[in-house]
Amino acid sequence: MAARGHRFQERDMTKIHLFDSTLRDGAQAQGISYSVEDKLKIVAALDKLGVSYIEAGNPGSNPKDMEFFRRVAEIELKHARIIAFGATRKVGSQAAQDKNLQSLLAAGTDALCIFGKSWDYQVTDILRTTLEENLAMIGDTIRHLKSHGKEVIFDAEHFFDGYKANPDYSLQVLKAAAEAGADCLVLCDTNGGSFPGEIYAITQMVRQEVKTAIGIHCHNDSEMAVANSILAVQAGASHVQGTINGIGERCGNANLCSILPNLQLKLGFSCIPAENMAQLTAVARYVSEIANVTHNEKAPYVGNDAFAHKGGMHIDAVHKNPLSYEHVQPESVGNTRHILMSEVAGRSTLLARINAIDPTLGKDSPQTQKVLDRLKELEHEGYQFETAESSFELVVRKELGKYRPFFERKDFKVIVNEPSANGINSSAMIKIAVGQQEEITAAEGDGPVNALDKAMRKALERFYPAIAEIKLTDYKVRVLDSDKASAAKVRVLIESSDHETSWTTIGVSTDIIDASWRALVDAVEYKLLRDQEKAVQ
Amino acid sequence: MAARGHRFQERDMTKIHLFDSTLRDGAQAQGISYSVEDKLKIVAALDKLGVSYIEAGNPGSNPKDMEFFRRVAEIELKHARIIAFGATRKVGSQAAQDKNLQSLLAAGTDALCIFGKSWDYQVTDILRTTLEENLAMIGDTIRHLKSHGKEVIFDAEHFFDGYKANPDYSLQVLKAAAEAGADCLVLCDTNGGSFPGEIYAITQMVRQEVKTAIGIHCHNDSEMAVANSILAVQAGASHVQGTINGIGERCGNANLCSILPNLQLKLGFSCIPAENMAQLTAVARYVSEIANVTHNEKAPYVGNDAFAHKGGMHIDAVHKNPLSYEHVQPESVGNTRHILMSEVAGRSTLLARINAIDPTLGKDSPQTQKVLDRLKELEHEGYQFETAESSFELVVRKELGKYRPFFERKDFKVIVNEPSANGINSSAMIKIAVGQQEEITAAEGDGPVNALDKAMRKALERFYPAIAEIKLTDYKVRVLDSDKASAAKVRVLIESSDHETSWTTIGVSTDIIDASWRALVDAVEYKLLRDQEKAVQ
Repeated sequence: MAARGHRFQERDMTKIHLFDSTLRDGAQAQGISYSVEDKLKIVAALDKLGVSYIEAGNPGSNPKDMEFFRRVAEIELKHARIIAFGATRKVGSQAAQDKNLQSLLAAGTDALCIFGKSWDYQVTDILRTTLEENLAMIGDTIRHLKSHGKEVIFDAEHFFDGYKANPDYSLQVLKAAAEAGADCLVLCDTNGGSFPGEIYAITQMVRQEVKTAIGIHCHNDSEMAVANSILAVQAGASHVQGTINGIGERCGNANLCSILPNLQLKLGFSCIPAENMAQLTAVARYVSEIANVTHNEKAPYVGNDAFAHKGGMHIDAVHKNPLSYEHVQPESVGNTRHILMSEVAGRSTLLARINAIDPTLGKDSPQTQKVLDRLKELEHEGYQFETAESSFELVVRKELGKYRPFFERKDFKVIVNEPSANGINSSAMIKIAVGQQEEITAAEGDGPVNALDKAMRKALERFYPAIAEIKLTDYKVRVLDSDKASAAKVRVLIESSDHETSWTTIGVSTDIIDASWRALVDAVEYKLLRDQEKAVQ
Repeated sequence: MAARGHRFQERDMTKIHLFDSTLRDGAQAQGISYSVEDKLKIVAALDKLGVSYIEAGNPGSNPKDMEFFRRVAEIELKHARIIAFGATRKVGSQAAQDKNLQSLLAAGTDALCIFGKSWDYQVTDILRTTLEENLAMIGDTIRHLKSHGKEVIFDAEHFFDGYKANPDYSLQVLKAAAEAGADCLVLCDTNGGSFPGEIYAITQMVRQEVKTAIGIHCHNDSEMAVANSILAVQAGASHVQGTINGIGERCGNANLCSILPNLQLKLGFSCIPAENMAQLTAVARYVSEIANVTHNEKAPYVGNDAFAHKGGMHIDAVHKNPLSYEHVQPESVGNTRHILMSEVAGRSTLLARINAIDPTLGKDSPQTQKVLDRLKELEHEGYQFETAESSFELVVRKELGKYRPFFERKDFKVIVNEPSANGINSSAMIKIAVGQQEEITAAEGDGPVNALDKAMRKALERFYPAIAEIKLTDYKVRVLDSDKASAAKVRVLIESSDHETSWTTIGVSTDIIDASWRALVDAVEYKLLRDQEKAVQ
């Protein structure tokens, strides 16, 4: 922290363990609720990125989490340990008899995180027990879990507020956890009200008092969670808790998408394998889509605007030397520079995708340019292909002339009647053509999208019986331009699956039925295309 | 910065000057463009709040700004000085002949802000002149403006990067500005890449080298702009530049909505009159509305979620003592606490909400039980009230008999035709009744939800003209039971806003049109209910 001539930052290859809580503390955020499938997908993405720990649920307070822990145990992870989270034993009970601790052990993870109180007033006024019993609860719990061979991380709730009120007691709490065998002591700024200077000073003092590894857990209520986490590391913490995109209750948790590059690219700490850093933007966007929240395009490092340049002066300078207005290279975190007047997109990423379909094309082939132009046009309309890879593949194929449509839509009409009698209130008429043959049919459904989906399948099934295998497994809608109220553009993402795999397609339109239709058509065509290719092989 | 026992923060009544650049640097953000009227409205709101400076435009680069400066001169401001912003004189020219400086003076403000380069490489490689000429440009410009009696604030662009590359030169730049008579030297972290520790150390060194007042100007590219600004103040800066809601290019400028309460409520500096602090949330929302950007509901201090509590454990603790999970009182910044309903929230949470409507009911009243039963039934159907507080309130009122519907739906019918001609492909017919009066009407729209929304507003507007104020700002759909494909249950969340606040409503149905309809009706009824209650007060 002190100034040393020009060496304001120490370059340090020390390993810092990232502890992701997107699935646990992140699930406390307003509007967030994950299915078991959502959680498994996020686990896979975080493990691929290379975080050290993934805190995934609280089996004691949420019985639904047990299915997740059973299923995640079947997955082989490369980098991460899965964490089950819970409280210490209850006041006046025995650790071995505590139901929550039994659920925690039953989750079957190798590592656990438990939280306990470290602010004297919280013990006496909220928990309503003695300061001694609180120390015993923490010690007993950790010893019990350690006797089962678990790695145990201890979250000292309200640590900084506690230290400011009663430093001796908050240190006693840490020492009780350390003596019981905790592997890491995490200092929590639970209310998010602490300042960088005090986080630095208190962490440094704790560092001198205990030998156990120190962690940091910050909330963003003062908009300083990232800086607070960084300063804790500079004061000696080696474990950082946070969430992807800062998802979390109130103003969010410390944002790992900023902390990770700050620590690794700027300060030289080692958090994840260096070659994985370029996955960061994709992981951030993927989590936003799964959590069904609007991705923050102004987010440092991982937002679309993070490397966008508008002012003419700035753009000139960026062309002369990107260092003029960019603190890191956008590619280092898998993002791209956006020049807002005349966009120049990242061609090499695209080329890799094009070569998967046609390996003969090069960076400067006219066909590559044609695909690029079409994608820009679609992105301008609101398409976003990060999560809709199947639609992306169809677009590339169409532009390369490697695609023959399976059918042609001639017409459709949907009628919705309210009030509905037993849910079936919509009917759809559809007319399609396959080659020279036409088919007109109709179906009823629960709502217009369902009616249309059923009518389309009915019309196509006699030509393509494999359509019966498609199951629509998820359907998400986002409003793109919210100023225009219900006439705004909507983006529909449809996830489909058959017995072998799942795939996601996208449709954008001002009309939700039309957007859904486009995504449905892509879903069907992608399935038929895949079956056709397998038949050829 | 250093630890002093428990006194980690100095309480300091020192005056800190807030310099708001929402209208100048904020206008560099993607998607932001203000009319002259917009700018005048924001000036009035900022002056009422009590900031010291309002940087409002760059008359040299934007001739349209002249009209603004002419009109703003007619307004009497209570707290703020208006600032015109511009560059130093051009390379090799005379300050008195420089066109930009002439425009700057023609703006007629008492105070000006000029920027100059303080990073040697930027002078030689971007500006392409000598280091000496750059010093002369800065000195000449400031002397010229001072000779016209202006207060002159000097922005040292790229100061921190410059200091790290060549500390001697960057200090020469500051000294040249100070000797020429600058009233304040602003250290800019133009690329937003600096770290809190180095900002603190460098600001402290500058403080020792020059006697002139020091300012700080940060960008948020490393998500540390707020912390960096705070540390600069703790190191001796007395002037802080930023924008409302952090509006600004790339990842935004330092957010005054967080810096202000951090400095004044937490550290005890004096930035604005104490009695004005409770205006903060309203000013933040007002600027979002005028700038036409979605207000960030997770924003510290001024977002709807900033004091929202979800977990049952947290809620119990907040009821026992708000300090448990709140770093400041929501009312201190003009915000309010939100207790979110969810499966983890218990009866005490519910009771607090019920008591807001009927204070006479107790935990064991039969009516409380009735509300609880109805909520469980709705949650079982797929309703989730944690984000849809407004629908929640309507449900409670209905169960308590404290609700009279504003209208009755008699019938509706929606027809969707494809292919669509110019997007307008849907039409809706609706029949409603208000008391004994019936209204039947129809509307066309982009998609069925839009058509229905428009038809409903059209039918109701003659009874309730305030409906015209409602703006639909977000629309989200989640599939609840994805196994059933497109016939699955969907949950629609609609966020609406007017000039004062925003509210969220929910609808669940197997039919997306029906679910949307329910959420739309709640949105309208909640607005009318709120207006009615205000009228009664």
